[in-house]
Amino acid sequence: MSAPLPSPVYAVVMAGGSGVRLWPASRVDHPKQLLSLGGERPLITEALERVAGALNEPTPYAHRFVVAGRAHEEKLRQACPQLPHAHLIIEPCARNTAPCVALAALHLKQRTPHAVMIVSPSDHHISYAGAFSEALKRAIKGAEQGKLVTLGIKPTRPETGFGYLERGAQVSDQEQPLEGSEGGRVEPRCEVRRFVEKPSREVAERYLSSGDFLWNSGLFVMSVERLLSEVARQLPELWAALEAIEPTIGTPEYEPVLAERFAALRSVSLDYGVMEGAEGVEVVPVELGWSDVGHWAALRELYPQDAEGNVKVGASHLTLEARDNVIYSERPVALLGVSGLVVAESNGALLICPAERSQEVRDVVESLKAQGQGGLT
Amino acid sequence: MSAPLPSPVYAVVMAGGSGVRLWPASRVDHPKQLLSLGGERPLITEALERVAGALNEPTPYAHRFVVAGRAHEEKLRQACPQLPHAHLIIEPCARNTAPCVALAALHLKQRTPHAVMIVSPSDHHISYAGAFSEALKRAIKGAEQGKLVTLGIKPTRPETGFGYLERGAQVSDQEQPLEGSEGGRVEPRCEVRRFVEKPSREVAERYLSSGDFLWNSGLFVMSVERLLSEVARQLPELWAALEAIEPTIGTPEYEPVLAERFAALRSVSLDYGVMEGAEGVEVVPVELGWSDVGHWAALRELYPQDAEGNVKVGASHLTLEARDNVIYSERPVALLGVSGLVVAESNGALLICPAERSQEVRDVVESLKAQGQGGLT
Repeated sequence: MSAPLPSPVYAVVMAGGSGVRLWPASRVDHPKQLLSLGGERPLITEALERVAGALNEPTPYAHRFVVAGRAHEEKLRQACPQLPHAHLIIEPCARNTAPCVALAALHLKQRTPHAVMIVSPSDHHISYAGAFSEALKRAIKGAEQGKLVTLGIKPTRPETGFGYLERGAQVSDQEQPLEGSEGGRVEPRCEVRRFVEKPSREVAERYLSSGDFLWNSGLFVMSVERLLSEVARQLPELWAALEAIEPTIGTPEYEPVLAERFAALRSVSLDYGVMEGAEGVEVVPVELGWSDVGHWAALRELYPQDAEGNVKVGASHLTLEARDNVIYSERPVALLGVSGLVVAESNGALLICPAERSQEVRDVVESLKAQGQGGLT
Repeated sequence: MSAPLPSPVYAVVMAGGSGVRLWPASRVDHPKQLLSLGGERPLITEALERVAGALNEPTPYAHRFVVAGRAHEEKLRQACPQLPHAHLIIEPCARNTAPCVALAALHLKQRTPHAVMIVSPSDHHISYAGAFSEALKRAIKGAEQGKLVTLGIKPTRPETGFGYLERGAQVSDQEQPLEGSEGGRVEPRCEVRRFVEKPSREVAERYLSSGDFLWNSGLFVMSVERLLSEVARQLPELWAALEAIEPTIGTPEYEPVLAERFAALRSVSLDYGVMEGAEGVEVVPVELGWSDVGHWAALRELYPQDAEGNVKVGASHLTLEARDNVIYSERPVALLGVSGLVVAESNGALLICPAERSQEVRDVVESLKAQGQGGLT
């Protein structure tokens, strides 16, 4: 009896988000995944390059796909010039990650019914690409065995802004912890005991000290078949839409049918709609220098700090008796005697707020719209 | 016996300063007096227009003069296109206000030996032009009687950044307090008992409550003869320089002699070098809506505040849960959850500091120079 051939592996990078909390750098027509944060290239370009180490492509980008909205199509194609034209899958409207991933799975199924797909956000930062590739390879093994596998980030602080998952027993005695050559760490695959929503501060501190809880990274690996079977079982509305869309792929009917069926769907996340209700879910616990770059204060995770704890990005900024500030501006900024602020300047608009309130920048954007300054958003 | 003819009155506006504490709006090549703060026009243009009400000019600007450094000559001429070419007196180097005013007096003496001159800073703000004119008219009366007269601002807070003067007895029973038609107030001329240096906070509070102390505004009115006789008596070095310069006026020798003699002078202020050591000094106590616009926090004195105490200048700025901030920027600024800050943006550079430290912006400018970023200053 010979071992089964390894499944062809594809990557699906989800680029439908806006990253409104990174205003004024992120804009309606220039979302977060197009920003270069923590690297030279846009976050989406980094995300597409980063998955390559776990793929076995006949030609570069042959197995990489992006799902995004029509509004950002042009800028995304510019940011990812190597991406084949047909590999940008357009969502007619945003319905969160379950419909997004299911649509991509439908397209992959037509090409390669037995494909495994890596599902990745387009707007996160990862420092240790080597460890990331190793983690994906472990996850792919699980996916080839029909598991739904996620990467779980080992928490470094009692974060209340993320979902967590609790790991259970190790899946295989064969796997050992791996240290990435440039940093990072990959642990053996474990079963997932449960997913948990964003915790209170107290609970988050308990999770952090227990060692059994991991941040839900939004990075998944699964076979197309398993994903679609879970959709059929758990999300029958979505499944019905997929059944209507599938026969139109490659025909003139595709776009109108897709538009109609997608618009009628509920928004639901892959985590909530598929992962939480599934059996056979596994996690690869990892340390990857990961950040979701969710808001300005997260720039601390991406850039070095000076001796006073200031992060300075974009120009030569001056700080005098100023501590623990995050400055992001192409124009020179001088801070005198202020601490713990975010100062972000982009495209002629400026934001200043305490770092601990940078999650609330969404309110600023909403207020600008309400005041008739939507052009700034 | 007939009353003497009124003296011809001239105005000398001193524009040699830099206003470094208003960086980044003020720059080495674009000093504070060229900024439009609290009005539509540059401060120096406002200063020149404001004195007109106390002059009796045969043609506009016939009696108005500016003293400034060579570096700002071109921009000042652009800002004051009505100023006759010969009415911009160039100081070859900055030696504070006593040499500046004495040089202007020398030029006026050649035109009109019995002139009275109004000496005015170029970079202050005054809200009540009507009251200002009335105050000058009272001061001119004193100057015609040979007095050295200053305008003394009635203090509104225990300011420790200004010099004060203590007023003595009223000079004339004839004068009554005047209310400006648009605001402000002018009191009868009083003798000056003494000048006092910048006080401690405690002393400043005593001054404020006593009612007898006034801020030294830097606005003076005096006859050319009296000023020059005080220079001869109190500042013999400066007097010697004037004696050397005087015969060269209008000759090719003027500039080289002026340059040489000015360079050799000590810096000394009119207040310290002349006023404090003189007899027969009077003050017109005034309320003029005056501000020296000395630093960014002073913008509170020039502009209205919103319901949360924020001053917003230059664009439509958004403040959310933000109080008592001063925002000066042509680009839109959004503040979330910060209070008591100065945010000043100009010419591609940005300053942020607590309002109570805006006096220290000089340190920022010095640090920029020390770091090789002098181009930003």
